[in-house]
Amino acid sequence: MPACYYRTMSESKYPPLAIVLASGGLDSCVVAALAHETHRLALLHVNYGQRTETRELQAFNEIANHYQVRHRLVVDHKHLAQIGGSSLTDETLEVSAADLDNQEVPSSYVPFRNANLLSAAVSWAEVIRAGKIFIGAVHEDASGYPDCRPVFYEAFAKVIETGTRPGTRIELVTPIIDQSKAGIIRLGLDKQAPLHLTWSCYQSEADACGTCDSCAFRLRGFQQAGIEDPIPYQTRPDYV
Amino acid sequence: MPACYYRTMSESKYPPLAIVLASGGLDSCVVAALAHETHRLALLHVNYGQRTETRELQAFNEIANHYQVRHRLVVDHKHLAQIGGSSLTDETLEVSAADLDNQEVPSSYVPFRNANLLSAAVSWAEVIRAGKIFIGAVHEDASGYPDCRPVFYEAFAKVIETGTRPGTRIELVTPIIDQSKAGIIRLGLDKQAPLHLTWSCYQSEADACGTCDSCAFRLRGFQQAGIEDPIPYQTRPDYV
Repeated sequence: MPACYYRTMSESKYPPLAIVLASGGLDSCVVAALAHETHRLALLHVNYGQRTETRELQAFNEIANHYQVRHRLVVDHKHLAQIGGSSLTDETLEVSAADLDNQEVPSSYVPFRNANLLSAAVSWAEVIRAGKIFIGAVHEDASGYPDCRPVFYEAFAKVIETGTRPGTRIELVTPIIDQSKAGIIRLGLDKQAPLHLTWSCYQSEADACGTCDSCAFRLRGFQQAGIEDPIPYQTRPDYV
Repeated sequence: MPACYYRTMSESKYPPLAIVLASGGLDSCVVAALAHETHRLALLHVNYGQRTETRELQAFNEIANHYQVRHRLVVDHKHLAQIGGSSLTDETLEVSAADLDNQEVPSSYVPFRNANLLSAAVSWAEVIRAGKIFIGAVHEDASGYPDCRPVFYEAFAKVIETGTRPGTRIELVTPIIDQSKAGIIRLGLDKQAPLHLTWSCYQSEADACGTCDSCAFRLRGFQQAGIEDPIPYQTRPDYV
């Protein structure tokens, strides 16, 4: 029996490790489902003082339990709330009602948030030797957040290459960046992602409000996909 | 009197705002002295669970008092200690004795630390509208840390450009990156930087140990510059 047989066995027994940035929301849950197909998961959740953190962390842990993930890291990035400048972290700023055609940077933009999240992920990846970092950033059909654009991730990949040990190789993977919300939901169903465990609302920790930007994008996505969103809402406006 | 007169007056009365990443150490103190010549200072200190944090924070505040800085931000990046992988944050790893000719990445390297620090700085800069971020990274005569190389800062500048609001302009400034430690000390004296307030030791919070990497680089720098280091040491080996 050739030696390579054992290597193949060992590889199939222990898939490579990948970090998935998991907010507890729908997009990152679908990304976790995708990464799970080829990798052992390490899930990273960042608390940055957002209004609905308690509910998001619950969703994160339920998704991690679903995939039986042992490598979990919950990072406190409270400085993003200290610094402020976003309706997501500053109680004095109002979460604006949904405007799905908005082309501006919305009030929920947390300045340079994703660079803060990715930096923590890369530090962790370098220590646990994860070769990939998956992030559920979405450019198409989303937000106007500058740190969700492909060009930002291309630039960050170069920072990883230059800012880590010479032997470190960490690939940044953005598998749904060009997808529509409806496309992400269909993909999630196809990959049996536990969408019923996810939380997206920016405003409420009980039933989702149904009216903030995040709820509106999510509800419209389910409506466009012709599927009923399995989570409870206070109100389910028609966004299509 | 032409209108531009008032603009000029106003500009000279309020110099532009710049963030300086200030550990409390010698390098960043000299960088603060440089930035102070042309900018109002906003000082950012990051606690990442390093052994000597209490002493470093004291030095940070004394330097901030010296320059009468109103804009101060102390950020907790405890996740870097949670993640580990460095003798600076992990009590089970030994801080190696100085090896000034070492070409390897030393045990005190905190994985991807400077990207974490810079990300927080950029978030703050975007909110307080600081146009520059100064960091006292030193490539020459230093450490072997990958995230102290010019190529890393060039890559990070691109991340700032792509990851912030369209109207945001934040320049990354590394004014001492090519300097030797002796050169930095001479520059500090020339700019009247309060070097007696700084703290560099990786290991001790009372008198500096004199033997860790950081002490060794500092002592050798003062010895090469022909100046006596004003802070107390347990031992002052001859490194020249």
